[in-house]
Amino acid sequence: MIIVMSPQASQADLDTVVAKIRDAGLTEHISRGSERTIVGAIGDERTLSEQAFEQLAGVERAIHIVKPYKLVAREGHPAGSVIDIRGIKLGGKQVQVIAGPCSVETQEQMDLAAAGVAAAGCRMMRGGAFKPRTSPYAFQGLGVQGLEFFQKAARQHDMPIVTELMDVRMLNTFLEHDVDVIQIGARNMQNFDLLKEVGRVNKPVILKRGLSATISEWLMAAEYIAAGGNNNIILCERGIRTFETAYRNVLDVTAIPVLKKETHLPVLVDPSHAGGKAWMVPALARAAVAAGADGLLVEMHPNPCEAWCDADQALTPQELIDLMGSLRLIAQAVGREL
Amino acid sequence: MIIVMSPQASQADLDTVVAKIRDAGLTEHISRGSERTIVGAIGDERTLSEQAFEQLAGVERAIHIVKPYKLVAREGHPAGSVIDIRGIKLGGKQVQVIAGPCSVETQEQMDLAAAGVAAAGCRMMRGGAFKPRTSPYAFQGLGVQGLEFFQKAARQHDMPIVTELMDVRMLNTFLEHDVDVIQIGARNMQNFDLLKEVGRVNKPVILKRGLSATISEWLMAAEYIAAGGNNNIILCERGIRTFETAYRNVLDVTAIPVLKKETHLPVLVDPSHAGGKAWMVPALARAAVAAGADGLLVEMHPNPCEAWCDADQALTPQELIDLMGSLRLIAQAVGREL
Amino acid sequence: MIIVMSPQASQADLDTVVAKIRDAGLTEHISRGSERTIVGAIGDERTLSEQAFEQLAGVERAIHIVKPYKLVAREGHPAGSVIDIRGIKLGGKQVQVIAGPCSVETQEQMDLAAAGVAAAGCRMMRGGAFKPRTSPYAFQGLGVQGLEFFQKAARQHDMPIVTELMDVRMLNTFLEHDVDVIQIGARNMQNFDLLKEVGRVNKPVILKRGLSATISEWLMAAEYIAAGGNNNIILCERGIRTFETAYRNVLDVTAIPVLKKETHLPVLVDPSHAGGKAWMVPALARAAVAAGADGLLVEMHPNPCEAWCDADQALTPQELIDLMGSLRLIAQAVGREL
Amino acid sequence: MIIVMSPQASQADLDTVVAKIRDAGLTEHISRGSERTIVGAIGDERTLSEQAFEQLAGVERAIHIVKPYKLVAREGHPAGSVIDIRGIKLGGKQVQVIAGPCSVETQEQMDLAAAGVAAAGCRMMRGGAFKPRTSPYAFQGLGVQGLEFFQKAARQHDMPIVTELMDVRMLNTFLEHDVDVIQIGARNMQNFDLLKEVGRVNKPVILKRGLSATISEWLMAAEYIAAGGNNNIILCERGIRTFETAYRNVLDVTAIPVLKKETHLPVLVDPSHAGGKAWMVPALARAAVAAGADGLLVEMHPNPCEAWCDADQALTPQELIDLMGSLRLIAQAVGREL
Repeated sequence: MIIVMSPQASQADLDTVVAKIRDAGLTEHISRGSERTIVGAIGDERTLSEQAFEQLAGVERAIHIVKPYKLVAREGHPAGSVIDIRGIKLGGKQVQVIAGPCSVETQEQMDLAAAGVAAAGCRMMRGGAFKPRTSPYAFQGLGVQGLEFFQKAARQHDMPIVTELMDVRMLNTFLEHDVDVIQIGARNMQNFDLLKEVGRVNKPVILKRGLSATISEWLMAAEYIAAGGNNNIILCERGIRTFETAYRNVLDVTAIPVLKKETHLPVLVDPSHAGGKAWMVPALARAAVAAGADGLLVEMHPNPCEAWCDADQALTPQELIDLMGSLRLIAQAVGREL
Repeated sequence: MIIVMSPQASQADLDTVVAKIRDAGLTEHISRGSERTIVGAIGDERTLSEQAFEQLAGVERAIHIVKPYKLVAREGHPAGSVIDIRGIKLGGKQVQVIAGPCSVETQEQMDLAAAGVAAAGCRMMRGGAFKPRTSPYAFQGLGVQGLEFFQKAARQHDMPIVTELMDVRMLNTFLEHDVDVIQIGARNMQNFDLLKEVGRVNKPVILKRGLSATISEWLMAAEYIAAGGNNNIILCERGIRTFETAYRNVLDVTAIPVLKKETHLPVLVDPSHAGGKAWMVPALARAAVAAGADGLLVEMHPNPCEAWCDADQALTPQELIDLMGSLRLIAQAVGREL
Repeated sequence: MIIVMSPQASQADLDTVVAKIRDAGLTEHISRGSERTIVGAIGDERTLSEQAFEQLAGVERAIHIVKPYKLVAREGHPAGSVIDIRGIKLGGKQVQVIAGPCSVETQEQMDLAAAGVAAAGCRMMRGGAFKPRTSPYAFQGLGVQGLEFFQKAARQHDMPIVTELMDVRMLNTFLEHDVDVIQIGARNMQNFDLLKEVGRVNKPVILKRGLSATISEWLMAAEYIAAGGNNNIILCERGIRTFETAYRNVLDVTAIPVLKKETHLPVLVDPSHAGGKAWMVPALARAAVAAGADGLLVEMHPNPCEAWCDADQALTPQELIDLMGSLRLIAQAVGREL
Repeated sequence: MIIVMSPQASQADLDTVVAKIRDAGLTEHISRGSERTIVGAIGDERTLSEQAFEQLAGVERAIHIVKPYKLVAREGHPAGSVIDIRGIKLGGKQVQVIAGPCSVETQEQMDLAAAGVAAAGCRMMRGGAFKPRTSPYAFQGLGVQGLEFFQKAARQHDMPIVTELMDVRMLNTFLEHDVDVIQIGARNMQNFDLLKEVGRVNKPVILKRGLSATISEWLMAAEYIAAGGNNNIILCERGIRTFETAYRNVLDVTAIPVLKKETHLPVLVDPSHAGGKAWMVPALARAAVAAGADGLLVEMHPNPCEAWCDADQALTPQELIDLMGSLRLIAQAVGREL
């Protein structure tokens, strides 16, 4: 850590800073510049808090030099992680498109959806049994019955399933129903108790980015899971909140190369939630794969007009087939396969 | 709801819209303008989804006219709610300043803090036993022992206590330890399972605004609590996330008059978390009371330099006394008392 | 326009609204719903101001139904515009990559740059003679001499040049020096006097999006140019300002399909300014073309380490060649050519 | 400046950094930590560019330690500046409320407005003759005739006038018409040619903050004016752009104490543009004065319902009188006078 002293700082102020560095078991290194004196704290600075220094008299700013995340950082783990999901590899050469409806509605709907997902050439399926809804009066998901409909439909095509966990108390139910990939939604990205719990199990976890989470906060949330012992973590960019009102969220494609540099974890993109409209999905999906995403989470519904939630963002089965065709070419253009 | 048809919409498109309105038990009302046809849906539009219409052919936009929140809206409840917290009124003429440390550390620290809070003339105390921390390696709070230290200290001055609940599984422990006001933190504002649980108990709840939550999302989160039967809800603005990097968050004072117009719930402001620096707190606290806030949540620590978290944003006991003096004048200037 | 009356509105309030609609030469259409009365204003609503209605007693909200832009809207101009720049088509099947240095430095630098741009297969060149710099102490550009160096270098390869105009007083100089495409920078997107002036000439104009401009504001800025009689307008997305601090700006790829739907104008993307680092440029450039951009503005410098400004975002000549190779495949994947 | 080397940096990389520091006439100071080597550049670092270092091999980050602004910084100018506007002091003990209509419409309207402004006890008047409008089809201001109407009305009450300059070519006209304070609008905050021009005259300038300008960019814009020799600069916070859609902008009161710490320039607040609705103005105006603003820019119109622009944000003359009464108490509460 670097501590920048203010021009008015006294020798006593400087002594206090030095004492605090030594108390933490680190060593100081003082540089006197023309306008400011700067103190470097040498040692494991992750134990130091910027705030603890910034409130000392004579201190202008304290700056961490080392990144706060460690287990998920690419720095100590140069090769990208490949997550194995019942034999399907996520994070390798093959780009994975995980498709399915926003919410599980009926067995029939899920059977049709699963058939459509498989027919398009996707290898995994998504669907929500527990739904985070802005309104308490909106459909909250079928719950456990939804998990059952989902598993039954997906197993017919031997596809692993991805579904969202909202409540720590439901984790055992997820394990009992053999959910293959646990999704942590954007609103729960910093639900730290939930992160700790999924850190204790040995299941792949998709961690969606919070609507206004920085890359650093997102990686620290992943670090919570890794710190618990679960390294099967997959990040998913799903659009961020900005000032723009012409579309729901802004898909942050810049995050893709930045994550690839900062972390060894695979990166998915959810173009359906980002834009919020089915007609935007193909353009955003292509952009994501072109920018280096390892896969996509795409909403598809056998009959979007009748969908119980987010009706306007689901592709039809035919639109998914068409999208897969164009994604194949994009994947090849960036040296991958679909 | 109003459905705006696109200029290219056919009669068949219009018929589909009308059928969907009637299916939901509402009545249509069609206006043919010079450039667009507009369809009004008359009846309880809260059951209609904008998305469900926007994905129909020929529909350009669907706009809700009625606000999505009902129980917390001022519209049906013109008088402001006054919450009674062990005899102390929040939401009435008296402005309440709730002060205390970021986190509970030791019994001695809490005793000193409680004495300082009481000496400054505050009537309630805050403190964190369970801490949401960005890093899994940071101090996570003392937990249940923290609740005990806190209660022991506050009871000596007969002050109700406010503390944060992060995990649904700890709610019973909070009730057993007789926590007076349950705080839901910014990161959990849309942790819907947690909202549902605190909606089932009869305890006042402070609901902090999420870092990038809109007023509408925030009131819908409050609606979750109210829909469960708990009307003792207090909102707390704590700064929003913006592009600015010179300070942690931007205190959104505009939210204060807007909330006062939209909802009957009392509104607190947390100037400590908003700015992130102790020296900003007095200016922000004064602005909040001048703009009409019903109270403040202020961090104070008997010895900020030694605080275990957020050291640079806590006031000293003397600074709290000074702040209360200037707030008293501001409160009077807006027709209230401290 | 639709005017939503509040539940408390009186008949007199409604009469005032109706009178104001009629005064403007439009006709009212009243719908009485279960909770609200809604008034439609039928006729050319572009002459009505939402604000003028929202300040009337009893009015809750006024909502424009028709888009405020007209000349640049795709609605009245279904075919995409193709801009002809000295024989090169922008907006058609061919994707155009316009490359060159951030700023013009010397004749030698520009000669090398032009050779590199041409060698990579680009058909147009960019470079700044007048530079908008955050600091008054930073290099402000070579000015007129820069235009001369630039023209001399580009003409050797018969490439049209793109350069930024900041000051209305320099427009004639730009015309005298035969600048082919006038760029309006992000900070001047709403410099309305500048927009009016370039609206009066018959030169292609690249209008960059302001750092926090909405799609609607951006199209209205383009409308200023079109209203002056100049239809040769090209939009350029260059990243928007958000809360994220890990990179300079967020490239808004969602804007690409949305603009393609809303306007007939061609859309460029500037991946260099968006990310702010050369190593991010290839991923962002590929994403832009995959999402449907008609071209790119890319920074390239013969020797980035010695560049006088934005040194860390310029590609080397070899990196530009490599990028063009991968963009060719992406362009083909979306049915275009490079 | 501090340059953080990456863990993989070689000795040759370090040598290149050191050479670049020496080339600029500064001295290096090297600290070797446990994980990173850090190089301090000692001397006038304002001549160094972070980008120029960040693109060198082996460099992870370059961080400026000294603030980029100098003339407007409080660091070298501890006393707050007081600007004298025809005998009226802005920046001293007296809080100045500058009121008037959004736009100049007629002589009669301005005479009524001036009488109302004076009757409320305000000492300066605002009004727009040149209007920056989002739409080219909206009223663009009366222009020079507007300046004449304005001066005639204000001179009857001996009030200095504040009005916006949009176009460098109009500066002489402003001087000929004896405009007392030149306002630079939010959209022109980084119109650097305009800033340079007003830096060359000896007239007070109100510099409004851009909609998404950081504090640092804003102060650098002020530095442009100061660098030209004009020190009569007044900053005006007018709300920033965020994700919130319930109101036009978010009034950033946090900026007030931060500016007071960073710069010696006086700080105004415009509560009318921030909220966008007249009913929000009193709460926001009170918050601004409570937070330490030196004055306000408030819209008032003799007949808001008939205003030609921004009708819904203007106070009536009576509302201005009432506001001044409550602001007087707030000013006293913070040790000032109105």
